[in-house]
Amino acid sequence: MQKITISDLGKFVGQEVTLQGWLFNKRSSGKIKFIILRDGTGYLQCVYFKGNVSEEVFETIERIGQESSIAVTGKVKEELRAPGGHELDATNLEVIHETHDYPITPKEHGIEFLLDHRHLWLRSSKQVAIMKIRHRVVKAIRDFFDNKGFTLMDPPILTPNAVEGTSTLFETQYFDLGSAYLTQSGQLYAEAGALALGKVYTFGPTFRAEKSKTRRHLTEFWMVEPEVAFNDLNDNMDLAEEFLEYIVQTILVEKAEELKVLERDTTKLQNVKRPFPRVHYDEAVEILHKNGINFEWGNDLGGTDETLVSEQFDRPVMVHHYPAVVKAFYMKRDPNDEKYALAVDVLAPEGYGEIIGGSQREDNLDFLLERIKEHNLPQSAFEWYLDLRRYGSVPHSGFGLGLERTVSWICGLDHLREAIPFPRMIYRNTP
Amino acid sequence: MQKITISDLGKFVGQEVTLQGWLFNKRSSGKIKFIILRDGTGYLQCVYFKGNVSEEVFETIERIGQESSIAVTGKVKEELRAPGGHELDATNLEVIHETHDYPITPKEHGIEFLLDHRHLWLRSSKQVAIMKIRHRVVKAIRDFFDNKGFTLMDPPILTPNAVEGTSTLFETQYFDLGSAYLTQSGQLYAEAGALALGKVYTFGPTFRAEKSKTRRHLTEFWMVEPEVAFNDLNDNMDLAEEFLEYIVQTILVEKAEELKVLERDTTKLQNVKRPFPRVHYDEAVEILHKNGINFEWGNDLGGTDETLVSEQFDRPVMVHHYPAVVKAFYMKRDPNDEKYALAVDVLAPEGYGEIIGGSQREDNLDFLLERIKEHNLPQSAFEWYLDLRRYGSVPHSGFGLGLERTVSWICGLDHLREAIPFPRMIYRNTP
Repeated sequence: MQKITISDLGKFVGQEVTLQGWLFNKRSSGKIKFIILRDGTGYLQCVYFKGNVSEEVFETIERIGQESSIAVTGKVKEELRAPGGHELDATNLEVIHETHDYPITPKEHGIEFLLDHRHLWLRSSKQVAIMKIRHRVVKAIRDFFDNKGFTLMDPPILTPNAVEGTSTLFETQYFDLGSAYLTQSGQLYAEAGALALGKVYTFGPTFRAEKSKTRRHLTEFWMVEPEVAFNDLNDNMDLAEEFLEYIVQTILVEKAEELKVLERDTTKLQNVKRPFPRVHYDEAVEILHKNGINFEWGNDLGGTDETLVSEQFDRPVMVHHYPAVVKAFYMKRDPNDEKYALAVDVLAPEGYGEIIGGSQREDNLDFLLERIKEHNLPQSAFEWYLDLRRYGSVPHSGFGLGLERTVSWICGLDHLREAIPFPRMIYRNTP
Repeated sequence: MQKITISDLGKFVGQEVTLQGWLFNKRSSGKIKFIILRDGTGYLQCVYFKGNVSEEVFETIERIGQESSIAVTGKVKEELRAPGGHELDATNLEVIHETHDYPITPKEHGIEFLLDHRHLWLRSSKQVAIMKIRHRVVKAIRDFFDNKGFTLMDPPILTPNAVEGTSTLFETQYFDLGSAYLTQSGQLYAEAGALALGKVYTFGPTFRAEKSKTRRHLTEFWMVEPEVAFNDLNDNMDLAEEFLEYIVQTILVEKAEELKVLERDTTKLQNVKRPFPRVHYDEAVEILHKNGINFEWGNDLGGTDETLVSEQFDRPVMVHHYPAVVKAFYMKRDPNDEKYALAVDVLAPEGYGEIIGGSQREDNLDFLLERIKEHNLPQSAFEWYLDLRRYGSVPHSGFGLGLERTVSWICGLDHLREAIPFPRMIYRNTP
């Protein structure tokens, strides 16, 4: 038997079909019963006229509860007012599994209740829309790099060293080899990849055991990290802005329906087009001072600082040349002024904050050794990474983009926890 | 400055270009020096005639070692005998970073030495070919499901329960919530996804803390797991064979160059076309008996059993209806004969063994509760999973495919460790 889904119905107008799915909603109006069937591909209104169906079917519809799994049969009609453009003139309904007392009703539920029932909450129309957008963002990310000749390099999750202390690392026993730690970033491995394959990207889960309860933190999240041999800071910014434009413009076109379900105001997303403003850290500090913020030069930008800077512009803004002291050891310093790192953060509009962080990497062996010493890092842990500067070192740059922050911004969500199927936070690792 | 890569050269025939990359190889022949440049997109022979270049360039070529990073300039010529079809009539060479004593020379190295230098070993032509095939396999997997309307559902890596004991699990402290464990499979979460979105797939790293030293085991590997509502065992086998055919035929067409680098005999891969033979477990036992193996009905097939069964056929073989006792608790039993599970394993040819394992899932709440008791599993850990049978349960099926086993088979590798950028095994979690 050919399986027909709601998204296929355009091919079956005027024909009798049977579809399988779940009872999303129902209502009665005199001698008519309306049900909404959902099957994961869409929603379909099925109309049961009392005269057209058996008494038993009518009673069944009356009896079964939300989320009962059912098979409906009827003739497909065009109905432009309906979501998806079709309606079913229904003649039969069979129950696959009768459900009552489904926990998630159309009324309001508290967030903890919903998270406890995440396995069911995912069936709600808003969550379905978010998951479809997340999927399309992932595909856009991969398509972007694949079409530019990048090679995917999956970095290891289990890594051997806790070079900056264990306080934000998940630790596990690795057989007789001592402790291993869940990766916080695939970047160092991506650098090895870039020197082997020119242009690479990593894309996988990363972990932060941060005791942070903000709406912008998950302990487990997905990150994509391109790394390109022979790219300098400017090339890196060119790549970052082209990348973000591609993602956002793709979603606006391909997931317009889902954005409507989320009631997302897309006017500000329309603006995500190159060129993005490029703001030197010193200019960012000036913006803060002009707005009455008592910000000391040399500090990193905090969340509210980022929001204030990004509010000056109508699209994502790239802040570059941060003070070297607030940035990671592997970032190259500006040869013209050593107090700056060749770093860039991309701040999303609407208060979504940093979604990209990147830099040109230090490619000089001696300078990198100095940085490792300055940061009190154990050189032995980096010997393999130092090899990349011993053998065929080249200028190279890259950045990381957090998937859930990006999805959250595009969907207009209040909290990252809805941007991933099963969120992990300081107080939650279930279901 | 426009960056030109070796893969672009078709557009620049007759023009003078500069390319950046690494010195892969060099040789002299009287008044000519040949170097091979690699840049991650390909290999290019650059020919330096003594009369055409400065004495200094000639001396530089003499001096610099393998893997020095360089920029070469010259005129692009068509040269059909060369890999990639071009050659450079070179006029200049600039050194970016002069390298000597690169550890991995064209001579033989032991495997432990190579694994210790994995960050450099990845630059070797064979490893580059494997990584490009791996990437294309990943893309084929995603394209296959994306084009069929599946939704990607990234499952959590950190999971709360060790339901079958901790012996093969990596364990970590999860804040104040006790232990968490690295996932061994996203399947249970994929089932929740299938009931929300109809057709889903997970694709991410999975972990087995197995003290296994065979060439077919990694402690960290990537797995893709489709799960489809309303699919039965037959649908599941239809999906599995179409999926494998798509992957292998795509690689044969799109990665023919890389397969040549690996000297892969592709005649057996050409056969990977539907329909695959479907062999009932009882028939598999008969095959073993006919071949003089003392195999007891009711056991699982071991590695050598699998090889013997698969040798009877010219393409992957699907063994189905395993005895329920050797299969997982969530597999549905055959309603016609309860001693069988509605399970299927797909065995790859050429001794590569099981690359897919799947089943129809138990969708009846009471039966599933019985299985949980029989397997001595704690029901409380599965309450959320049981909810999927309480609310709108439907028949559903899925399977898992191991990425590294698939890449290893397609590439004809002896060991999984070369099928992933940075392999993790019982005695290795570095670099």
